[in-house]
Amino acid sequence: MRRLVVTSTVAIGMAGVLYYPHDPLPIAVCVSLLAGMVTWYLLPLVGPRFIAAGLSGRDMCKADRPLLPESTGILAATIYLMCMLCFTPFLFHHWFIPTTAEFPLRTFPFQKLGEYLAALLCLQSMVFLGFADDVFDIRWRYKLVMPTIASIPLLMGYFLSDGVTHMVVPVPLRGLLGRVIDIGVLYYVYIAMVAIFCTNAINILAGVNGVEAGQSLIIAMSIAANDLLYINGEDRFAAEVHIFSLYFMLPFIAVTVALLWHNWTPARVFVGDTYCYFAGMTFAVVGIIGHFSKTMLLFFIPQVFNFIYSSPQLFHLVPCPRHRMPTLNKDTGNLEPSRCKLTDCSTLGWAILSIYRLFGLVELQQDPSTGVTTINNLTLLNLILTKWGPLHEATLVSTVLGVQVIGSLLAFFIRYQLVHFFY
Amino acid sequence: MRRLVVTSTVAIGMAGVLYYPHDPLPIAVCVSLLAGMVTWYLLPLVGPRFIAAGLSGRDMCKADRPLLPESTGILAATIYLMCMLCFTPFLFHHWFIPTTAEFPLRTFPFQKLGEYLAALLCLQSMVFLGFADDVFDIRWRYKLVMPTIASIPLLMGYFLSDGVTHMVVPVPLRGLLGRVIDIGVLYYVYIAMVAIFCTNAINILAGVNGVEAGQSLIIAMSIAANDLLYINGEDRFAAEVHIFSLYFMLPFIAVTVALLWHNWTPARVFVGDTYCYFAGMTFAVVGIIGHFSKTMLLFFIPQVFNFIYSSPQLFHLVPCPRHRMPTLNKDTGNLEPSRCKLTDCSTLGWAILSIYRLFGLVELQQDPSTGVTTINNLTLLNLILTKWGPLHEATLVSTVLGVQVIGSLLAFFIRYQLVHFFY
Repeated sequence: MRRLVVTSTVAIGMAGVLYYPHDPLPIAVCVSLLAGMVTWYLLPLVGPRFIAAGLSGRDMCKADRPLLPESTGILAATIYLMCMLCFTPFLFHHWFIPTTAEFPLRTFPFQKLGEYLAALLCLQSMVFLGFADDVFDIRWRYKLVMPTIASIPLLMGYFLSDGVTHMVVPVPLRGLLGRVIDIGVLYYVYIAMVAIFCTNAINILAGVNGVEAGQSLIIAMSIAANDLLYINGEDRFAAEVHIFSLYFMLPFIAVTVALLWHNWTPARVFVGDTYCYFAGMTFAVVGIIGHFSKTMLLFFIPQVFNFIYSSPQLFHLVPCPRHRMPTLNKDTGNLEPSRCKLTDCSTLGWAILSIYRLFGLVELQQDPSTGVTTINNLTLLNLILTKWGPLHEATLVSTVLGVQVIGSLLAFFIRYQLVHFFY
Repeated sequence: MRRLVVTSTVAIGMAGVLYYPHDPLPIAVCVSLLAGMVTWYLLPLVGPRFIAAGLSGRDMCKADRPLLPESTGILAATIYLMCMLCFTPFLFHHWFIPTTAEFPLRTFPFQKLGEYLAALLCLQSMVFLGFADDVFDIRWRYKLVMPTIASIPLLMGYFLSDGVTHMVVPVPLRGLLGRVIDIGVLYYVYIAMVAIFCTNAINILAGVNGVEAGQSLIIAMSIAANDLLYINGEDRFAAEVHIFSLYFMLPFIAVTVALLWHNWTPARVFVGDTYCYFAGMTFAVVGIIGHFSKTMLLFFIPQVFNFIYSSPQLFHLVPCPRHRMPTLNKDTGNLEPSRCKLTDCSTLGWAILSIYRLFGLVELQQDPSTGVTTINNLTLLNLILTKWGPLHEATLVSTVLGVQVIGSLLAFFIRYQLVHFFY
């Protein structure tokens, strides 16, 4: 059955490539389908090899805590990268046709090719870093340095493509700053920050089956939907960059669906840090080379919230245990928020917690016998469980994905409606 | 002491970068020194983490068979890649200076940047494959497919840079074929074959401490020496591609020296497949984008010999045990050729073996009690031990490196003297 599905997809893919030899978009669709199918087919087969190589972990949210292959996102990422490499000649195919006999390659868009290769290099570096992290457990400081170095070619690509470093000033501030300001080198700092934020944002909102691949899928579909708004538009520049973005999104969506299939609760595989970095960098890359990084960040509303909400623990103002994933109640089979003891909490930490409490964002409990105060760990997952829990794992993930969908709708509203009040 | 050396190298590196802000070559030298020192410093520190991650192996050529970290070439390769990424802006630095106010980036060599990025992408893919091979033990067929896919951007880069696909015909054949023939698409097949051959060639001549890094160092130094012959020459095109090749070779030589330091017998680390693929692809990449792939292949004479010599076992015409490295004689502390039983040997295998025997390339022995014939395993290492052995490990490696040096001298002789008889 599995073999039949894959074989027929390969056949459709090949037919598509042969039928549309000059139009990259249908080819991209076929190649993406192919990539998704191959990922879906191979994931269960490679699982035992991952476990044999020591890449495995126990699923703590199940009663029997099964041993699952870890970091299988590396397979999805590798197939994605191979797919993008194979797609390169098709993307530039129509430029290979000689325009005149004397200058056979006169109009070839080397700049575009450079950007494309820089994007792939950047992506591959992050996949590599993610995998190294899964194998070696790299320290935090290196995790911040490496995306910065990985994004050098991307920054150069941006600089060379046109290097726009000015921003349109929102209406309320125009009296002060003028209509447009050039923030110069700060723009590149901003771009590097986008790369660092995106690669880590997915990784922070993680811990239960399907949540990493699920949120990435919704973000990717939102970006693709946004791309579709432009590709037939009159602005040729916008159309071009959004088609480019679509070429990156289509195979990403395909391999992510395949991964989510096997990672949905009860999971047969874990996606690993590899996948989180890979997904984050894919979004960062298309946002940057597509010149729509601000729109792209709007699709990260739940991740931004989760990051800000988590930051007292991430920056150790409030005690932070090693794992903050929800706890399984073995009697009910439901997940409950994991808690952390407030011993050794800084004054600033207490101040932030009292603000959180004011908005109902944290649940303090005091143990009557010991007098020790505990709070729910500060992650979106635990917050949802505190408000509406206990929940079954599938319900929890569906709720998070629901939040992500609402976030995307809000993003579209801000981008295409609310924006008129400011710009 | 270690810290002092690294700190002073960093200081020299920084001073060099500040002192020569417009000339990439001194910067490349400083950055390479830095990369080498950092590799040398970090290798002993990361060893325990590699062992903890399950990346370790026993050194079978020592009496006590110590457990050593495996695949540490990944560290050298990662530092090399980071160094090349950081170097990118310097390489194109002088193009960033505006030529006129209207067209600030008019003359930027996007094509060169594309080639550079394609080369890095290709290299990184192979490092990634090598590491995956160390972790998962990938099957042979995938090892052949993946370098081919990894070299797609490189092939595109070659096609776009000028896409020369004609070859100058050697004098004896000119009556038949003319002075120049265009071999068209076969040229790209040839390029892909170069990539596959180089990545695997280093990996086949391996098995004792220092041999992988040692042979790579000599090949890299030969390529760099060859580059130096051109960089001040009158042919500006040749000068440019050879400077480009030098930028790839300098940091490679630096990280390889650092690796060899720790890998020399008695080794504290193993380099792993990662390093072999990385080294091979670095050579393939510079040979291809530098348009001197044939000269580059001349530096692989010992590897070509080893490959041809090994092929009866590689293609299973003669029985091939899993490991073919020399055997340690625990009494003498010397290495002796490992042997393989000739049960189940094909007729073609026997025919080849009798030719080998004619030239004294194989040593057949018959066990008088069982009647089973054995041969030395068909590798250059075992051949040297059969001829001049038993040898101590250090002597064996030095002999192989001596052969490599003689190979390089022969290559220079063929390239600059003998060539006049044919072209």
